[in-house]
Amino acid sequence: MTALPKHVDIRDVSLRDGLQIEDPIPLAAKLELLAAVAATGVKEMEATAFVSPSKVPALADAAELAAELHNFPGIEFSALVASPNGAKRAIAAGLGSIEYVVSAADGHSRSNVGRSTAEATAQIPEIVAIAHDSGVTVEVIIATAWDCPFDGPTPPQRVLDIVAAACVNGVDRVAIADTIGTATPRRVSDLVTLVRPQIGDIPLGAHFHNTRGAGLASAYAAVVAGITRLDASVGGLGGCPFAPGASGNIALEDLVYLLRDSGIGTDVDLQAAIAAAGVAQTAVGHPLPSSLLRVGDRILGT
Amino acid sequence: MTALPKHVDIRDVSLRDGLQIEDPIPLAAKLELLAAVAATGVKEMEATAFVSPSKVPALADAAELAAELHNFPGIEFSALVASPNGAKRAIAAGLGSIEYVVSAADGHSRSNVGRSTAEATAQIPEIVAIAHDSGVTVEVIIATAWDCPFDGPTPPQRVLDIVAAACVNGVDRVAIADTIGTATPRRVSDLVTLVRPQIGDIPLGAHFHNTRGAGLASAYAAVVAGITRLDASVGGLGGCPFAPGASGNIALEDLVYLLRDSGIGTDVDLQAAIAAAGVAQTAVGHPLPSSLLRVGDRILGT
Repeated sequence: MTALPKHVDIRDVSLRDGLQIEDPIPLAAKLELLAAVAATGVKEMEATAFVSPSKVPALADAAELAAELHNFPGIEFSALVASPNGAKRAIAAGLGSIEYVVSAADGHSRSNVGRSTAEATAQIPEIVAIAHDSGVTVEVIIATAWDCPFDGPTPPQRVLDIVAAACVNGVDRVAIADTIGTATPRRVSDLVTLVRPQIGDIPLGAHFHNTRGAGLASAYAAVVAGITRLDASVGGLGGCPFAPGASGNIALEDLVYLLRDSGIGTDVDLQAAIAAAGVAQTAVGHPLPSSLLRVGDRILGT
Repeated sequence: MTALPKHVDIRDVSLRDGLQIEDPIPLAAKLELLAAVAATGVKEMEATAFVSPSKVPALADAAELAAELHNFPGIEFSALVASPNGAKRAIAAGLGSIEYVVSAADGHSRSNVGRSTAEATAQIPEIVAIAHDSGVTVEVIIATAWDCPFDGPTPPQRVLDIVAAACVNGVDRVAIADTIGTATPRRVSDLVTLVRPQIGDIPLGAHFHNTRGAGLASAYAAVVAGITRLDASVGGLGGCPFAPGASGNIALEDLVYLLRDSGIGTDVDLQAAIAAAGVAQTAVGHPLPSSLLRVGDRILGT
C-alpha cells in the first residue's frame, strides 16, 4: 500500500469559487467570511477573480476586496484570471499569486472564455511573463480535466498537453480540476498517475466538486495517488441556491475531518472551519451542503 | 496497488434501515417502493425488521410486508432481528434470511436492545440454531464497529471478539456497520485489514452512513481493502426528516455511479436506481440527500 502523506496543504476557495454563482453579497460580508476562514489557520486562499464583472457579478468587487487583504498577514492570497489583461489587473490590485485557468475541453473553454483550449494554452507564456516580471507566482488550473458538460469525457492527452505547456513555460504550480463534479476515485487515480511523471518538481494540486457525492472519495483517491494540495470551500459553498442540497466545492470541514481521521495533518482547525461554514451560510442566506456544519465532529476519544 | 474487484454485491436496505426512522408509510407505498427497487436489478434486499413495534413503529407491518415478498422472485430478502424471539417471528413470516445485530459497544448495545455486547454475543448460537433448523441463512451485523455515540471509538478487539463468536458458531455472513456515520477511509482500511484474516471464507460486508460526508469514500476504501458486499438505500434514505440535507445510508445510485466509473460492476441499473430514489422521495414526502437524484448521471461517452 502506498504510504499516505503526513500533511496536505489546503487552499480555501470560498471567496472565489464558492461565491461566484451566488447573488452578490456586500464587501463587508465577504470580509467577515474571509476573517472566519483565516481563523481556521488555512495558509492559502483564493480571494477573488479578475474576470468580466458582467459575467461574474458576484466578484465585481475584486479590486476593492484585494485592497483589504493586507489585513490578513500570513495567508497567501491568489486570484483567478482568464486572460493577460486579467493577470495585469490582479497584479495591479496587489495580488501576489494568480491562477490562470485553461479548460482541457474545447466546448467548456469556448463557453467559459470564448477561446479554444489551444488558444488558451498559447497564452501561458504571456501570462507567466506578466506574473514573473512582477514577482508574482502563477498556477495553471486545468479545468474540465475529467469531463466537459459539452464534449463529454476529456481525453487525458489534452490534459497532458496543457501540463507540458505549463512546465516548459515555467509556471510555479499546476492543478487539475473536476469542474463539473463528475470525477470518481479510479478515474482520479488514473489521471494523477499519468500527470505526475510529466510534471517533475512542480507542485500538483487537485480540485473537486461534490456534485455527484463522490467529491471526498475523489479527493482521498488523489491523496493516495500522491497529491498533497487540495482545494475546498467552507460549507461546501458553490452549489446552486435553487437546487436544495446541491453541492459545490468539497466542504473544507468535511475534508479536514476525513483527513484528520486518516492520520493526515492540515493547517486547519476543525471547529474553526465549522464556525466559518456557519458564517458562510449566514452570508449567502440559504442552507449549505456541509455535513459537519449539520452534525459536528464525531465523539472524540482514545 | 491492490487490484479492484470486478464486481460488488449490493444489498438495498431502503425498506428497513431507510424507513425505520421515518413516520410510518402505508404498506401499499412500501410495496411500490419495493417494486421500484426490485426493478433496479439488485439481488438482495433488507425488507424489514422483526423488532418491537412500539420502538420502531415504521416497521410494525413486518409480517404483512413479508407476506407480499413472494411477488418478487429472484431477490433474496432478509429481515433484521435483535433476539431469538425476533428470529422466530421472521422465520414464521416466511423470511429465508435473517440479520442478527450485535453492537460492538456496550453503550449502544444497551440503548438499542437493553443488553451488553457480551450478552448479545452470547445469543449467537441460539439465533444460528433457530435459523439453520429452518434452513434460513443468518448474518451477524456488527453495529458501532467504528464508533459509539455513547462510548466513543470502539476498540477493534471488541469487533474481533464478535467476529470470532460468529465464525465459531457457523453464521453464514458477517457485516461491519458504521452505525452513526463517523467512519473515514483509513479507519475503514484498518478495521477491514484486521477482520479479514479472522473470518476465513465467510463473506464479509460493510455498511456505511453518509452522515459526515465520507460515506462513499469509506465504501470505496472498503472495496480497495477487499470488501465485495455493501449496503445502500435508494435516495440515501435514512436521514432525519427534521434536519435538511441530513444523510442516512449511502445512496444506492451514488454508489453505483462511483463503482461503475471505477470499473466495478454491480447488478444495479443506474437509471432505474435514480427512478427508485424518486419513488422513495415521494413515499416519505421530503427531499432525500441523493446526489444523482438531483443532477443525474454524467455525460456518457467514450
